[in-house]
Parts: sequence; structure tokens; C-alpha cells
Amino acid sequence: YDITEEEALKVLLSAKTKAEEMDVLVNIAVTDAGANLKAFIRMDASYLGSIDVAIKKAKTARYFNIDTGKLGEMTQPGGIIYNIELSNGGLITFPGGLPIKNKDNVIIGAIGISGGTIEQDRAIAIAAAQSILEL
Amino acid sequence: YDITEEEALKVLLSAKTKAEEMDVLVNIAVTDAGANLKAFIRMDASYLGSIDVAIKKAKTARYFNIDTGKLGEMTQPGGIIYNIELSNGGLITFPGGLPIKNKDNVIIGAIGISGGTIEQDRAIAIAAAQSILEL
Amino acid sequence: YDITEEEALKVLLSAKTKAEEMDVLVNIAVTDAGANLKAFIRMDASYLGSIDVAIKKAKTARYFNIDTGKLGEMTQPGGIIYNIELSNGGLITFPGGLPIKNKDNVIIGAIGISGGTIEQDRAIAIAAAQSILEL
Amino acid sequence: YDITEEEALKVLLSAKTKAEEMDVLVNIAVTDAGANLKAFIRMDASYLGSIDVAIKKAKTARYFNIDTGKLGEMTQPGGIIYNIELSNGGLITFPGGLPIKNKDNVIIGAIGISGGTIEQDRAIAIAAAQSILEL
Repeated sequence: YDITEEEALKVLLSAKTKAEEMDVLVNIAVTDAGANLKAFIRMDASYLGSIDVAIKKAKTARYFNIDTGKLGEMTQPGGIIYNIELSNGGLITFPGGLPIKNKDNVIIGAIGISGGTIEQDRAIAIAAAQSILEL
Repeated sequence: YDITEEEALKVLLSAKTKAEEMDVLVNIAVTDAGANLKAFIRMDASYLGSIDVAIKKAKTARYFNIDTGKLGEMTQPGGIIYNIELSNGGLITFPGGLPIKNKDNVIIGAIGISGGTIEQDRAIAIAAAQSILEL
Repeated sequence: YDITEEEALKVLLSAKTKAEEMDVLVNIAVTDAGANLKAFIRMDASYLGSIDVAIKKAKTARYFNIDTGKLGEMTQPGGIIYNIELSNGGLITFPGGLPIKNKDNVIIGAIGISGGTIEQDRAIAIAAAQSILEL
Repeated sequence: YDITEEEALKVLLSAKTKAEEMDVLVNIAVTDAGANLKAFIRMDASYLGSIDVAIKKAKTARYFNIDTGKLGEMTQPGGIIYNIELSNGGLITFPGGLPIKNKDNVIIGAIGISGGTIEQDRAIAIAAAQSILEL
């Protein structure tokens, strides 16, 4: 099971639509089941530094099959996996990355959003990940 | 002058359509005028190794405002800029990368295609770069 | 909108003059709107390690359009974007990096200062960024 | 013996003046005796990819105390130091990089020029390196 090109485009454009509705400028990254980049778009005037953050959020979400914000709770000083961010070429462990699941609840990829507040990024990621169920 | 999100999506989808017509599986990358990633899509079953090659082709095309294949003619052993590929974190200097120009012939970004033969990659890049003039 | 060579030189030399007045030895980096290096100077006997820090401060300021010190307040343990420094090849999130704006308040580049205390670095960056308005 | 800030600025501005006279758009990098970046300027509309090439030319010239074009003659297939470009994080071994010597013929740094033809880059580097003798 792996996200298809059409599904990735659907997720990408759903995130874009959601971000426009919320009036937030973001970078949107989608990875496949292998954590490899599948689709990406950067909204005009969004942060340049968010290109890499969005991609790393999506990869992180798939590397550990987790909401990146949940992972971040475990990586703080004193946390059980403190500084795991230093692995895998750099992880991002605050909200905005989510696994993408199909109708059978199987993880087929991941999405990463960066550019808004962490709450906005997470809301866009949730809406986009769910949009795949409409296909 | 910088490529917009809508222009980048137009180029991306034009490349995808062209690749489908030619029955080739490719990765498609678009950068902005600052050589930063703007849009990306990977066709199903295309090479995983082409993700980075497509992005590096687009960056190389913008770094030197040139068809990457033309650059490659100058980087061969005995060539005037032999081994320039070792700069900028790795350049790709065979065909498939092209600057994207607007109607006034100003470079606003670049496209990189990887996954087919170099002739196929280049043909897709040309068609996609020209599609922006239809907007 | 992008910083010009003359504007970059003006910012560079203003930073140098300010640093000399304050009797501080610093490295000074200026990036353009695309976060690419535009100008750089290292004062004699300033820290060698500050070359990269100054460049990364300028890039960080442009990546997120922010005073790097303000960014650092959000990246501490427990902060909303903890460990974002691991993205983009390494960010610097303590004071000394600032966006550069033109007379119309549009961001056209960024400056990074490293070598003094963080208060000194920031004061030099502020003076240099404002000097562009005198042109 | 090490190049001073004033000497580096003199070399930088001499290269800029020479490039303007020749009507070529280049990136100009100066390193110190330790092969560390000392000064840099990028002319408007010059190649983005030349930032790294100019810096690597200057570093290469100081790493081996040689005209980078001369080094390139030895790095071709069959050459005595074939593929040495892969060392030191990437060398550039075509013309445009030169050691900078003081009046006593001691090497105090290096200059790298990138953006024109290799002949133009080399001519600008020669003029700039010699300008230091006028101080």
C-alpha cells in the first residue's frame, strides 16, 4: 500500500484550499510510504525556511507513524527520547506532521505543513490527511 | 520577478500531462527565481533516485541560467569547467533541467525532470517550461 | 524586490563602522531576498567560527522573516518550535540576525552579525539594517 | 602574514571595478591565509551558482598555493592527481582562483572569481590580486 500520485495531489490541493480559507501562507509536503518526497508546493510569500521544515515534518511523521507534536512531547529535556531530532538527517518534532491513512486505516504516506502557527499547521494537516477518504 | 504558486502548478501539471502522453515515468521539480524548491510531484513507480536528480537539475538550471545538457558539454574531461558538479552541494549536468522564462523573457524559476531517457526528460522540460506562456 | 549590490555594500560598511565605534570584532554577512549570500566581510582577529554563524544568522532571519533572537525564544525546551535549529542545514536562533527592509517596508534581504556579545551583535545588525534607508 | 580587512576590501572592490570595465557579472570571494572566507560580494544578476564556485576557487587556490587553472591541468583523467576535486569538501580546478601575495611575495590569502568565461574570470582575478601592491 502506497499513496498514489493522484492521492498526493488531492492531499496537496486540499491543504492549499484549507490554508487559503484560514488565510495562512504555508509550505506543503507529502511523502509516500517509504518516507520519500512525493509532492510539494510552496504558497507565494510563505517562509523560505519552511520548505525544509515541511518536508522534515512529513518524513518524521512517517518515520515513526506519529503526529509530530506527540513525538515532541517525548523529546524534551528529561524526555524518554531526548534529542532524537539529531537522527535521520534532522527531525522536526512540533505539530504539523501527520501520517496519511487510507480507508482501511493503513498508513500510506505522510503530510507536513509549515508556515503558520503550530495550531494552524496542524489543523491544515488534519484536514488534508482526511481529504484522501473522499476519493 | 518570481514564479507564482499558480504558475508552478501549471508547469508541474503540464509536465505530468506530457510525460503521460509519452508514457514515461518521471519526477518533476520546479524552483523559484532564488533556486528554492517551489513545487514537486513524483509519478507512481518512477525512480526513487530521481527525486534528488530532478531537484538538482532544476537548481542547476537556475544557478547558471542554462539548459543542464548544455552545461554538461562544458564539464567533460578537458572541458572548460570540468568537475563543476562538485560545487553547490552537487550539480546535475545532463539534459532535463531548464530555466523557466515569462512572456518578457525574464527567468522566473526553473524546472527539472528525471526518470526517462535524457532526451525524454528534456522534451518534457521544454513542453512544461513553455506552458507558462499560455497562462 | 531584492537587495542590490550597492545596498549590500552600504549595509556591510555601516555594520563595520558601527562595530569599530563599539570596539567589537565581528563577521558580517548579507543575504538577498532568496536567502543566498550577497556580501560578507570579516574583521581582523574576529572569531573564525563566526564566519558560519554570521551567514547562518542572516539566512535564518530571511528564512523566517524574523529577528533571530525572537525566534530563539520559541525554540527553547518546552517552546512551540523546539529544535527547529536542526532544519535547513542548521539555523542560528540567538540575536544578531535581522531582515533588511526597504523604504516601503518590504523585506529585500537579511543581515547576520557574529563575534561580539549577543547584545552587541544585535545592536550592530539594527544599525546596519537601518542604514539602507539613507540611500 | 595574513591579509587584512582593508586589503581584502581593496581586492574585492578592484575586482568589482575590473568586472564592470569588462562588462561581466561575477561573484567575488577573498580568503585569508588560513583559507577561511574573508570577504565576498555578488554583482546583481550574476549567477547564483557562482557563489559557491567563487568561494571554492579561492579556497582551492590557497589550499595548494596555485592558479586553479594550472591545478586543473593535473586533475584530468590520466592526470597525476585525477579527481582531487573530491577532497576538501569540493575543489574547483578551472581558471578564476589565484593566491594573493604581498610586496615580499608571501602568500597572504586568495581570490576566486566566477560568473564570466574562464578567461574573463582569470583576468579579473589577476587584476584584483595585483591591486594589493598599490596599497
